[in-house]
Formats: sequence, structure tokens, C-alpha cells
Amino acid sequence: MKKKVSDKISEKIIINRFLQKLNFNRLGTFNFQNDAGYLNISKIYKTIVTTDTISENIDFFQNDPPESVAQKLVCVNLSDLSAMGSAPKAYTLNLSITPKINSSWLKKFINRLFFLQKKYHFYLLGGDISKSKELSISATFFGQAKLKYILSQNKCSIGDDIWVTGNLGNSYLGYKILRYSKLKISKKFQDKFIINYLYPEPCMFGSIAFKYINSAIDISDGFYGDLKKMLNNRFGAIINKKNIPISNNLKRIIIENNFKINIDQVLSWGDDYQLIFIANKKFRNKIQNLGKKNNIKLSNVGSVTKTKGIFDDSMKLIKKLSSFDHFC
Amino acid sequence: MKKKVSDKISEKIIINRFLQKLNFNRLGTFNFQNDAGYLNISKIYKTIVTTDTISENIDFFQNDPPESVAQKLVCVNLSDLSAMGSAPKAYTLNLSITPKINSSWLKKFINRLFFLQKKYHFYLLGGDISKSKELSISATFFGQAKLKYILSQNKCSIGDDIWVTGNLGNSYLGYKILRYSKLKISKKFQDKFIINYLYPEPCMFGSIAFKYINSAIDISDGFYGDLKKMLNNRFGAIINKKNIPISNNLKRIIIENNFKINIDQVLSWGDDYQLIFIANKKFRNKIQNLGKKNNIKLSNVGSVTKTKGIFDDSMKLIKKLSSFDHFC
Repeated sequence: MKKKVSDKISEKIIINRFLQKLNFNRLGTFNFQNDAGYLNISKIYKTIVTTDTISENIDFFQNDPPESVAQKLVCVNLSDLSAMGSAPKAYTLNLSITPKINSSWLKKFINRLFFLQKKYHFYLLGGDISKSKELSISATFFGQAKLKYILSQNKCSIGDDIWVTGNLGNSYLGYKILRYSKLKISKKFQDKFIINYLYPEPCMFGSIAFKYINSAIDISDGFYGDLKKMLNNRFGAIINKKNIPISNNLKRIIIENNFKINIDQVLSWGDDYQLIFIANKKFRNKIQNLGKKNNIKLSNVGSVTKTKGIFDDSMKLIKKLSSFDHFC
Repeated sequence: MKKKVSDKISEKIIINRFLQKLNFNRLGTFNFQNDAGYLNISKIYKTIVTTDTISENIDFFQNDPPESVAQKLVCVNLSDLSAMGSAPKAYTLNLSITPKINSSWLKKFINRLFFLQKKYHFYLLGGDISKSKELSISATFFGQAKLKYILSQNKCSIGDDIWVTGNLGNSYLGYKILRYSKLKISKKFQDKFIINYLYPEPCMFGSIAFKYINSAIDISDGFYGDLKKMLNNRFGAIINKKNIPISNNLKRIIIENNFKINIDQVLSWGDDYQLIFIANKKFRNKIQNLGKKNNIKLSNVGSVTKTKGIFDDSMKLIKKLSSFDHFC
């Protein structure tokens, strides 16, 4: 059947005016004139594949800046690749756009993709454009990794260190400020947290430290939910709660607001795109050095135990929060 | 942010009860427990990638059978791979489902995918599930081909044969019968054409005859529109109109209905998923033998000329129908 995106913007215009520059002139893209492309992955690697759909009213809101939508699309996929021990090489893009999407929106959206492609070194291989009642964007990302270094989500041993990258909860607070909150926060901090929510940065530490990591996951269902997934009902964990990285600003705001939001809420949120990873103790120094070298904050928050369940350092069972299952 | 597909069917149930069997127990899928997977493509091949989104009210209608939706999703992607000279190996699936989608719908949809995966030998690598106001499904398919045998859409030389696979227009008539038509057609033929429309079969001849083909395209914008795209404003074509493959049943129905539908309409339709391909004359016998061997109808409909434009065999310029541009 025929597709026509809208009366104003044809598929041809979207490709030629907006998308063309995203292919970085790579051969396998056929300059977007083919119905398929090919990937140029070196023979010594496996191709890592991850895919995510982000949709209006679920992953973002109608009036969110187009740059934020692009940032989230890239971030959610790049952090999945990172958790597999891989950096991005290329991606395909499926745009289902509404009649409200105009040239100005597209220009901003594409410019942010272009910026992120240059920053993280990947190109657009191809895609598809269709129309929809709600804006929905799928992307399939390709990375590469040697088979022996591909990270799974649930390989670990008793005594392994449990690490977390960055700070958790900043995105949650930004969301609260934008949507529901009557929190008392100074304007300066409000803006900072809103930026954390709208423009998350993927943590690519998995693509740097894969040699020293047993398993990794990007936090999408909250710290405890994702840790539980990693332990896979085979192991437990002791967590030093005070080592879970929450910024001093966020801690202060929680106190100043009389705990209207609490740490449990913060830790059940996933949009920080930080990683939990598990590694053998013997690599502690190597990992810390790699963190410093790459300016990535790392927190050693606990260790894997034989006893199932997640406990704090006084061996009190920590309430397990509900989590959602994943597909890919 | 959290995703929950509906109150009745959680993502976990969809994965465990319905999707799990589609991974064919392949290692790189991590049994759908990871956020990414890896592709097992042999080192001597390039990975061919194609992606398509099909959406309610555009590519199918709300009450179409779930098996038809699955068939179209697979067909549109497989014919793109075939046009690149490749057969499928694996795919990722992004389901954006509405609250109306229930277990019964999913079961039928997944069972048809399972059937097609076995028929065409590919497995599900991973995917994503989200919710939406309209049902929308994206799939990214992976095939393999040696670099020298990857087919482009517009490589040809003067004097090359122009071929078409199968019959054109059966799907168009099925659509007309289902949607608008007051055409006089016997019940038996009505059912046949409706099946052609609802359950199209991809033509995989490109993945068989790639050694002898210069370029190929699956017909999505109509015969003339897609042929024009192949000629790429560098060449022309002489077409023997009577050789364009239209079934005798369809021809008879056109006549019996006093040309209420005409050949031009039929040829501007794309949902037959047949291929146009261009090949050197010297391979004519090889190609015909491969067609016979694989029970694929092939029609030699014309040849590539130096003079730009598409002409009939009395050198009358054939009206060029509008076509839509593609992305990947």
C-alpha cells in the first residue's frame, strides 16, 4: 500500500533534506536509495544488536523538545550496547510520525542525532518512515564485540564486587519537577535536574572495561529490580546502602522537603542510564583506574553472596521492589 | 520510565508464553533475558539489514486476521532481502500494541511467525514491547551475502533483460474486493484474490539467482514506478506490455467488469511482493532454468536502452506513474 507521511512533508523530503547527512557517506547505506543496506563489521567481531521503541506519552511527552526525544532514543540503545560490552557502529531508524511533526521539529531532532552520531561514532544505515496517531520511534542499534568479551546480564561468582556508575535519581527528580511536584527546590537546581531527565547521557563504561567485567545491565527498572535480575535467583547480594551513589544535591533536597520523596522511590526509577556491573575483586584497581581515566564515577556498592536475597550490611533484608521483564 | 503493556497481558507473559519459542534456542538470543543479542553471521559474509514498520489503518486494517499481519510483516522484509540477493537469518521485533490486543490475537500472530520462521529458516533475535493507540509493528531483518553478490537497485547496462517474477495485480484485486468494490466476480475467485491480498508470499528469487542478476527491487510502488527507480535517470527501457505477467483470471475479470478497473491501476499497486530484476542477456537460460527448478514464474518483459524514458515496443512513451521514495 502507499505511504504518504503528510501533505506537507513527503518521505522523499524527509530523506533528502533531513536524513541524508546521517549516513556519513558509508558504502553499505547505498545513499538510502536501496530498500536494505549492509553492515561493515570486522570479521573478528560478532555483531551486537539491540532495539528499542520510544513512544509519545510513555517514554516522552508531546511537547518535549525534539532534541530530548533524539537523546533518549540514542541513550536507551547505547546503554544496552554498553551493558553488552560494546560501543555503537550503526543503527536503523523507524519513524512513525504524526501530522504535527513539521520541518522545524525534524530539523532539531535530526541535528541532535547528527551530534550524537559524531560524539559516539556511529552512522545511520537505513530505516523506514510511516505515519501514526502518536509519535513512535524505533531504532535498532549495532555494535561489535569479540565473542569472549560479550557481557551477559547474569554471569557472576560469590564474592564478586557489585559496582554502579554515575549517580542515581537525578533523572527521577527532573521528572518530578516537570510533572507533579510541589517540591521546594531553587530554580538553579530545578534546571539542572530537568536537564538530567530530558537529556540523559549513556554510560559507556561497559564498552571500555569489558575485559574486567563479568556481567552488566543498564538500570531501567530501578537499582534493586535490575540487581535482582542479575542475581537470577542463583545468588544474593550484600549492599552497603550508603555507598549507593546519590548526589549530595539530591540528598539535601530530600531532607529539605521532609522526605516527600524518598530514597526508595529514587532507586526504583530507571532513566539515569547508569550501569550496574559485577566484577571479580582482583580487578578492583584496574576498574577504578579505568573509571578515573575516562572520568566516569564508579561506586563499589556491595558483593555477591551465596545466600539468596538482597541484604544491607547489617544483613537486614532490603525490601525488593517490583521490576519489569525485558525482551531485548 | 516504566512500561506496562496492559493490565491483562504483561510484557513478561508476552515474552514467556508467546515469544519464547521464536528464538529457536539460538545462543545469541540469550533466551530473551538480555537487553541485547548478537548475530551469528559467518565471517565470509556481510550482514544485510532491512527494516519496515507496518501500521494499523495504513498497511493493514484493525480487523484483519493476526495471521495476515504477521504474513505482511515478514513478506515486506523478506522481499527486501531477496532484492539484495539474500535470504533471512534472524530478525528483531518491536511490538507497539493496543489494549485491544488479547491473548488470542497474540497466539495467532506468533503462530504465523513461527510457521514462517520454519518455512524461510530464520529466528527471532530479540525485540521490544510497548503500548500504543494504534497497533504498529517494526521488524529489522538480517540476511547474509558475499560482498560481490550484494545486489543494488540500479546497476544495469544497455541491452540487459528486464524480468518480473510471478503475477502482478492479484493483491490489488483482493484489496478492491475487500474494501470498495462492486465488481462482479464469482465467490471462488473473490476468495482467491482476497487470500493474495491478505497472505502475500515473498518472492525469494533474488536469494537464489544473485550470481546472474545485476540489480533487483521488490515492487512496492508499482511496476513502472519501481522500474523508473532502477533506471535511475541514467537509462531507459523498452517494455513489451503484453509480457507483463497478469493472470488470465485477472484479465478476464477486467474485461467482464467493462474495465472499471484497468491495467494501469493494477500496475501502480505494490502489494504482490514480486521482484523486477535486470540481468545480462547471456544469463537468460540460466535464469529460466533456475525459475523452473524453483517453481517461480519468470517473465522477460523488456530491455534496458540508452534513450531515457520507458517505452512500449512500438516506442510509444508509456505514461510514467507517480512513485514514492524509499529509505531502507
